[in-house]
Amino acid sequence: MPATETSGSTVTFADIEESSKRIRPIAKRTPVLTSRGFDQAAGFKAFFKCENLQTGGAFKIRGASNFVSRLTPQQLKRGVVAYSSGNHAQAVAIAARHWGASATLVMPLDAPRSKVEATRAQGARIVTYDRLREDREAIGKRIAEEMGATLVPPFDHPWTIMGQGTAALELMEQIPDLDALVVPVGGGGLISGCSIAAKHLRPGIRVIGVEPVDANDTFLSLAEGKRVEIAAPKTIADGLRSPSPGVLTFPIIQRNVERIVLVTDNEIREAMKFLLIRMKILVEPSGAVTAAAALSGKLGGKLGRVGLILSGGNVDLEMLVELR
Amino acid sequence: MPATETSGSTVTFADIEESSKRIRPIAKRTPVLTSRGFDQAAGFKAFFKCENLQTGGAFKIRGASNFVSRLTPQQLKRGVVAYSSGNHAQAVAIAARHWGASATLVMPLDAPRSKVEATRAQGARIVTYDRLREDREAIGKRIAEEMGATLVPPFDHPWTIMGQGTAALELMEQIPDLDALVVPVGGGGLISGCSIAAKHLRPGIRVIGVEPVDANDTFLSLAEGKRVEIAAPKTIADGLRSPSPGVLTFPIIQRNVERIVLVTDNEIREAMKFLLIRMKILVEPSGAVTAAAALSGKLGGKLGRVGLILSGGNVDLEMLVELR
Repeated sequence: MPATETSGSTVTFADIEESSKRIRPIAKRTPVLTSRGFDQAAGFKAFFKCENLQTGGAFKIRGASNFVSRLTPQQLKRGVVAYSSGNHAQAVAIAARHWGASATLVMPLDAPRSKVEATRAQGARIVTYDRLREDREAIGKRIAEEMGATLVPPFDHPWTIMGQGTAALELMEQIPDLDALVVPVGGGGLISGCSIAAKHLRPGIRVIGVEPVDANDTFLSLAEGKRVEIAAPKTIADGLRSPSPGVLTFPIIQRNVERIVLVTDNEIREAMKFLLIRMKILVEPSGAVTAAAALSGKLGGKLGRVGLILSGGNVDLEMLVELR
Repeated sequence: MPATETSGSTVTFADIEESSKRIRPIAKRTPVLTSRGFDQAAGFKAFFKCENLQTGGAFKIRGASNFVSRLTPQQLKRGVVAYSSGNHAQAVAIAARHWGASATLVMPLDAPRSKVEATRAQGARIVTYDRLREDREAIGKRIAEEMGATLVPPFDHPWTIMGQGTAALELMEQIPDLDALVVPVGGGGLISGCSIAAKHLRPGIRVIGVEPVDANDTFLSLAEGKRVEIAAPKTIADGLRSPSPGVLTFPIIQRNVERIVLVTDNEIREAMKFLLIRMKILVEPSGAVTAAAALSGKLGGKLGRVGLILSGGNVDLEMLVELR
């Protein structure tokens, strides 16, 4: 059995606790912010877990560093490969550099410039592809085979899921008495890991996912009771454009997630503006979907004390201009 | 003796400790952020005290709430008055609302729109004046006399200085082993209070102030050994346009501050961009002068572990466009 496969697909709370120690050399314990103005607008008490202030500007460093830290010296020597719209790529580049592996990243041609530049700045090799016509997974696998390198999956691997779950573990250490937890949903790595941590620490907690209307693959999959694949989404939330939930993440989501709320690109823009101008933090579209769900009233107002994960902050200055 | 005058102009560390309890109902314990990218650019290890994430978007709530909390029920009933380019106004409005006083704010015609709107949203009455032609202090005093209201000084009062000093008290609880502390300088309320707290806790700490080149009143005053008044500054750092240091703040600065570093508006813009795009936090021009001093190399690289106060984050979206 290759070392990147674990004995089963189950991720336990103990795995997440252990991962939280593994990632410490490079992942930050991000702050939790509050805002009376936001609470007034949302109708509940919000606690923002600021993964936009994380190393690499997103939660992805949690899963990537957990994964890379578990590779053997031989595997590290042969390098790592990843495909990503940006945040996972940057995280893998940072983790690879820290543990002494070379990194090759497969990134879409239309990835935000800041994400591509930040990844390149970590000393990684970048291979671009056409997001609407080419299969990034196939490209990544081919490069990995050619180089004998290890593919670092963006979400559908136990090590990735464990790492992402440390975000909720930390949040619930910081704010133990949450009634609900709201998490952005792309491939489902973040919400599946976070739901395992949250439900273990507080079984009654309500876990709610948020997707863009245009990238509603997990919403549809839950409704149909099986993984559904949708056409390549066009939402501004570039980190949530995965066409279907993962093989491993979907059953965890089915078990732990109460419902998925859908938000429009305009609602995302309004939330980004609120977070920036009122709360002074820069959150990227994918990271702002939780705030968008709250400000649009789609979460409802009777949730009590609510943790919202702001999953990333990598935005080009050019995009901010469009928020006016 | 009116209740807003204390028995002397000296502010002690014990005063600041007591103030830190008084302000707790409305002032936040703001997070301290770090950034490897910033450290690489600056050449030292930086710890950012994020007062841009403070209630009202700036440190001013510390002094204002400390001041208003000390008023008698009778004084609260007659209301409070303040003059300010924005952050102090908003802070006084929030504090007045919390302690049940009406607030009248004297604000310049060219104050950032967001600051005026946020102040109005707190239920305060706003009186505007022409910054280049009228004397805001005289207007404030006249209104206070007419209404029997209490003037809340923006910097030159022991209660204000004590309150602002809680920023450094907190920072040094969060990061006890700082070698230097870098603070924006307007009228000197923040740096005088912070220098008292910092020097008490760590007598060997180096306290460095930063002013815009165009608003170098404290720099000149230190050079001449007495308070100098300059023409109304035009710098983009609207919170640092005071024409001279305060009667109370200047001797404290003379005693505790090693030197004043001067930064240009362009250096401030570059620092704002770095803080926003790389560190994901929105910092206003006045708040970014400390980062500007570091990134421009003007602080020098051998400072060790350095606390930098980011004093506020109230910026209009329109201004961000100019950063491109």
